[in-house]
Amino acid sequence: MNDSQYYKLCNDVTIEIKKATLGLIGKPEAGEILRIGADGTPTDKIDDVAENAALSVLENDGRSMLFISEELGEKRIGGKPEFTFVLDPIDGTFNAVNNIPFFCVPIAIGRSDLSDIKYGFVKNLVNDDIYFAEKGKGAFLNNRKIHVSNISEISKLSVLSYSHRPNAMPVNNHNVRRVRVYGSAGLELCYVAAGLFDAFFDMRGMLRITDIAASKIIVEEAGGMITDDKGGKLLTPLNVRERLNMIASNGFVHDELLKTCVEE
Amino acid sequence: MNDSQYYKLCNDVTIEIKKATLGLIGKPEAGEILRIGADGTPTDKIDDVAENAALSVLENDGRSMLFISEELGEKRIGGKPEFTFVLDPIDGTFNAVNNIPFFCVPIAIGRSDLSDIKYGFVKNLVNDDIYFAEKGKGAFLNNRKIHVSNISEISKLSVLSYSHRPNAMPVNNHNVRRVRVYGSAGLELCYVAAGLFDAFFDMRGMLRITDIAASKIIVEEAGGMITDDKGGKLLTPLNVRERLNMIASNGFVHDELLKTCVEE
Repeated sequence: MNDSQYYKLCNDVTIEIKKATLGLIGKPEAGEILRIGADGTPTDKIDDVAENAALSVLENDGRSMLFISEELGEKRIGGKPEFTFVLDPIDGTFNAVNNIPFFCVPIAIGRSDLSDIKYGFVKNLVNDDIYFAEKGKGAFLNNRKIHVSNISEISKLSVLSYSHRPNAMPVNNHNVRRVRVYGSAGLELCYVAAGLFDAFFDMRGMLRITDIAASKIIVEEAGGMITDDKGGKLLTPLNVRERLNMIASNGFVHDELLKTCVEE
Repeated sequence: MNDSQYYKLCNDVTIEIKKATLGLIGKPEAGEILRIGADGTPTDKIDDVAENAALSVLENDGRSMLFISEELGEKRIGGKPEFTFVLDPIDGTFNAVNNIPFFCVPIAIGRSDLSDIKYGFVKNLVNDDIYFAEKGKGAFLNNRKIHVSNISEISKLSVLSYSHRPNAMPVNNHNVRRVRVYGSAGLELCYVAAGLFDAFFDMRGMLRITDIAASKIIVEEAGGMITDDKGGKLLTPLNVRERLNMIASNGFVHDELLKTCVEE
């Protein structure tokens, strides 16, 4: 199922990012702040190196596209764009800089907002696992079909949670089975798609489309559900200045988890 | 500084655990529940295999000791014990079973409770990093001396937090810079010792001495501070049935963080 016209391009980008950044993993210089990026947060050296590696692959692809990335913002490559290429050069920069083996490269192919993503690709840069999904064709981990979990009992849930709203149930370990926060939303959402975790929350108002556009279609194609914190469809435009809240789940617990978000 | 009489024993135990469990990492059978362990929680196959590997090293050491471990509880090896050997065979079992690269083996050498630990040894089973400390001799990562951070401003803290008390500040990403929960307390505490994170909380009343005895002395010898959730000295007896709450920090923020724990 890796016959998509986008698979090779995405894979080539992640291969070049891995080559370019490998020598920086765990090195203090990887975390040197070069400037403030287009997304309004500091650009570390490793992010900059990764983005440049991606850019040169895209410029040699031959297809025209709009390139959207955290550090440069947006850049037109070629003529009238055939598609929008959305990249977080390194998702989990703090982990990468500190040699904590949990970071990835998420790539989404879309058009104008989070509702029209047609392809998602997430490469785990540590072990080279590849999660991908094409609209209507299911979700895959290394070419093996994946599916969300079917747990519906709140006390049995394994949850990834950046919520931290005082009364939100999911942050309370006494109500769910397990809460983890690994620091790379793109990869953590793929764990929901693969059924390893049952839900993911981020209620800090800090998520960017570059963090989650790829995983959104992967979770949906794996049978899961992604909404904003009121249960609404995600319609955020594809640009790096937007910030959003989000819940992803296996679908069985979505409504009940949503209730915990509005109770505050 | 690895001239301690305990270094080789600890290292040999972790080498044998790694050999015995390598083929189980990421495999569903690793998570098969065999029985309820002495600590009152289920014994997964990988925990059992790891504990048996450790036991055979200890039985061949020649020294008499009291062996304390999560699954078997306690076992006397030889005659009158020279010391107590405290082990969590795999700290981060969920991660290991699911191929999430974050788990370790923590070992403490002590006598009767958490106040008389004299040696701590934590091996990161993924990348083989070794953290160790001997009472009065400093803390080390792979023979390089380590020290806690010196950050004292709450808004700049990177915190590992299993608290989840509704009003506890550290769980609120709006107050601290970064909250992470990687799922292996032994290794996460070593991150505090090495200055990568500034504080660690666990307020669930679920920690066992096997999780934290080794890292306690590593954090203290690195210049950090570890107390219960009221600021008191940890005096928990060395057995696997005890449960505790705990705060570890770089010392500069300890009092202020303690206040957030009692405000509830």
